[in-house]
Amino acid sequence: MTNDNYWFEYPIQVHPHHTDYGGIVWHGSYITWMEEARVECLRNLGVEFADLVALGCDLPVVELITRYHQSLRMGMGAVVKTRMEPLSGVRLHWDYRIESPDDRQLYLTGRVTLVAIDRHKGKIMRRIPPELADALVRLSG
Amino acid sequence: MTNDNYWFEYPIQVHPHHTDYGGIVWHGSYITWMEEARVECLRNLGVEFADLVALGCDLPVVELITRYHQSLRMGMGAVVKTRMEPLSGVRLHWDYRIESPDDRQLYLTGRVTLVAIDRHKGKIMRRIPPELADALVRLSG
Amino acid sequence: MTNDNYWFEYPIQVHPHHTDYGGIVWHGSYITWMEEARVECLRNLGVEFADLVALGCDLPVVELITRYHQSLRMGMGAVVKTRMEPLSGVRLHWDYRIESPDDRQLYLTGRVTLVAIDRHKGKIMRRIPPELADALVRLSG
Amino acid sequence: MTNDNYWFEYPIQVHPHHTDYGGIVWHGSYITWMEEARVECLRNLGVEFADLVALGCDLPVVELITRYHQSLRMGMGAVVKTRMEPLSGVRLHWDYRIESPDDRQLYLTGRVTLVAIDRHKGKIMRRIPPELADALVRLSG
Repeated sequence: MTNDNYWFEYPIQVHPHHTDYGGIVWHGSYITWMEEARVECLRNLGVEFADLVALGCDLPVVELITRYHQSLRMGMGAVVKTRMEPLSGVRLHWDYRIESPDDRQLYLTGRVTLVAIDRHKGKIMRRIPPELADALVRLSG
Repeated sequence: MTNDNYWFEYPIQVHPHHTDYGGIVWHGSYITWMEEARVECLRNLGVEFADLVALGCDLPVVELITRYHQSLRMGMGAVVKTRMEPLSGVRLHWDYRIESPDDRQLYLTGRVTLVAIDRHKGKIMRRIPPELADALVRLSG
Repeated sequence: MTNDNYWFEYPIQVHPHHTDYGGIVWHGSYITWMEEARVECLRNLGVEFADLVALGCDLPVVELITRYHQSLRMGMGAVVKTRMEPLSGVRLHWDYRIESPDDRQLYLTGRVTLVAIDRHKGKIMRRIPPELADALVRLSG
Repeated sequence: MTNDNYWFEYPIQVHPHHTDYGGIVWHGSYITWMEEARVECLRNLGVEFADLVALGCDLPVVELITRYHQSLRMGMGAVVKTRMEPLSGVRLHWDYRIESPDDRQLYLTGRVTLVAIDRHKGKIMRRIPPELADALVRLSG
């Protein structure tokens, strides 16, 4: 079984605080939506990010790539689509597409890489904690 | 008819980008949720804020008061409750309460005052545009 | 001796990320500048906020009042002026004015109230830690 | 003459609103500093970004790449170093390094690509406006 075509979908709405002087979404605002989609995707799999952190595992971003194809404007709605590549090691690669609700417009494509960290030691973990790994395997097929 | 007990409810979720070094929501993050709740409350009444702006009417904030009663923490959900006081003149007063979903915890109370501006003249309007006024009267009873 | 006329001055510059669709500073962006001015004022007195937090003392905001008089626009510079009222108990009241560099334009007036918290107990402190109290007395005269 | 070794330097300070639950700078906060460094670099060359926009030229971000090497923590200072690659066409490539003031620690490397847009037509410009091009040639050697 593969999940090649599975994307988790997180609907968003452009509010005034997301915009800049051009009436379009400021380029950094997309980063908040990408994080929200990732956290909600994990929650959907039964993994509460806050619990992971409380247990001593953090997932900081180590690389971020975003390409802006078209601009979202004030009042528009869109869908953040995300999926995780099959897990290998302690790096998690998440792909992103932000599209119009009808899929006809593509606003952003991106990729975010996280790494699992032991918060107490301040070091990269040697392996992903089992409860997270199990959920991620279900996600990335 | 009065709407004394009517509050528009906007559910929110605390994500990592809302938090600060203390693991709690940074005090300025609440301002984004209060704005979102206001815009969604207007949308619910049939008023698209982006359309108002396109028509030349803006509603900038002229006063903001927030009291922080308890802290929201990462991973928590809450409800932003807002209602508008009966309209008088061109100032709009919105009251706020941010509470736990079961209403037992109160996180924030606040009040935001907006004023209707003619974007082209850069001046306060002498009266609120009728399409907005009609919706607001339905809201504030 | 009184410090009635002393204001700590923190210069700021409006960048694109501070603005919204109107080309003016989004109302929540001012909160970041007010916090920065407060932290830099303390640093100027020899108090590193990060050290306070590391020692177990936090100063969360419990009340925020801002009045917006005129709008700052993209590319403009301004000065955040702040001063603390004389200390009484564990609440710290900071007054704010944001003005043009030549003092002729007033953009914002505000007041922020903080309270000293013991981070480990999660409770309001009975008294302010001496190293902070000494610095604050120098500040508020 | 080449400017291969020239980096524009923009000092920054980590404030509470930049941090997240981990006590480190939230990954999206770096985007604001990178934008500020770019705008201040242009100002240093005599180009006011707000003037460019008022004249109808915008420079939206079309691609962003950031790699996070180490975390900045609350209270730390750092330097954002940026330089522009030699101009070719209407795309501007800016390289970034965020380092400790003594250059011994590297926190972030990145690259931001902008494109010159005619705001009135909503289209990519066929060539960069001369006043901007002249300044950029001085910058990128």
